[in-house]
Amino acid sequence: MKKGVFISLEGPDGSGKSTQLTQMKMLLDKKGYNCVATREPGGTVISEKIRGLVLDKEYSEMDCRTEALLYAAARAQHVAEVIKPALERGDVVICDRFVDSSIVYQGYGRKLSREKVAAINEFAIAGCMPDMTFLFKLDPEIGKSRIEAGTRDRLESELTEFHSEVFRGYEEMEKLYPSRIVGIDAGGSVDEIHSKVAWHLEMLLKEKYDACRY
Amino acid sequence: MKKGVFISLEGPDGSGKSTQLTQMKMLLDKKGYNCVATREPGGTVISEKIRGLVLDKEYSEMDCRTEALLYAAARAQHVAEVIKPALERGDVVICDRFVDSSIVYQGYGRKLSREKVAAINEFAIAGCMPDMTFLFKLDPEIGKSRIEAGTRDRLESELTEFHSEVFRGYEEMEKLYPSRIVGIDAGGSVDEIHSKVAWHLEMLLKEKYDACRY
Repeated sequence: MKKGVFISLEGPDGSGKSTQLTQMKMLLDKKGYNCVATREPGGTVISEKIRGLVLDKEYSEMDCRTEALLYAAARAQHVAEVIKPALERGDVVICDRFVDSSIVYQGYGRKLSREKVAAINEFAIAGCMPDMTFLFKLDPEIGKSRIEAGTRDRLESELTEFHSEVFRGYEEMEKLYPSRIVGIDAGGSVDEIHSKVAWHLEMLLKEKYDACRY
Repeated sequence: MKKGVFISLEGPDGSGKSTQLTQMKMLLDKKGYNCVATREPGGTVISEKIRGLVLDKEYSEMDCRTEALLYAAARAQHVAEVIKPALERGDVVICDRFVDSSIVYQGYGRKLSREKVAAINEFAIAGCMPDMTFLFKLDPEIGKSRIEAGTRDRLESELTEFHSEVFRGYEEMEKLYPSRIVGIDAGGSVDEIHSKVAWHLEMLLKEKYDACRY
């Protein structure tokens, strides 16, 4: 039985997700919540191994279906080993990228069937969906320019059109799931963005944890 | 457009699939067919990497959904890089294990939903199903006894009940797809088994390749 609160962070590369994750973790620690901060693909020994495989630029021959299935495999392990046990303990879990990333990168970006990518991921997560998703919205070109060319991985090295499609996907997802996905303008300063996130976060935690007391 | 012939070999570990694969390849080479003999999980650089991960006994914490998705990921790459191009050239492809293995090992063995395992694999293979599947039927206990204890991988080390369920799965699959799956008693000698396989193989090749001529 899920007792904790599950939050995912989404957005293009360079949109500041990792910085915000650190800030959120600090805030929650200070407030006395047990908070697990994690990231995808990765988060477990097996998932990090899969991450290494899927992001390695050496494997340029990787088929887009293989890629989608590897992300889902890493996610299944992450859910089973880290996310689900933490939620069962009643912790707050914040995850940098989750299911929405697969739908926009593999569905919109790679032009695979979105329904099929969603179905594979539904199998992988076995019902473990985020309560709230922060979508950091930033022009993908600005995001890309923030990442040094030499350090880009296989997906970050994709062409502009791919990243535009991904961004379009995010905007559609935001419209499709307005009660779960909270769009945040990621163009402001770290503090500005953090204060917006903190406001939504406090509302959510109040609602979830206070509801349990009665 | 598929022009070749696709054959998969199935059965419990130790049922002699690899030996029969070698014999079939020799026969086809002798008869002048272009024959690609391959195996799963594996068959490409990426798939072999995934194979290493999924069969490593060190990863005992691997979730059964992760396992199912990794097999499907390895298969997607194998189909895209090896099987599909060979069939498009008009070759005969013989593959040691394919989709049926996932359905019986992950569905029957691991008790995952068979429909969901089938759906994931349908996505992975993108329509590339075998024309004929040889099912080498052998009591799983006899099969297991043929593999030396020290050399067993993560799946081969599973308990008897798991392997009995897998075998039951194979028998059900044989009943479900009688036009594709040919059951072969794997208790006989290598030559006896090979001559049965060779008979079915010749019928199939005659039907498939002769049909193309008119």
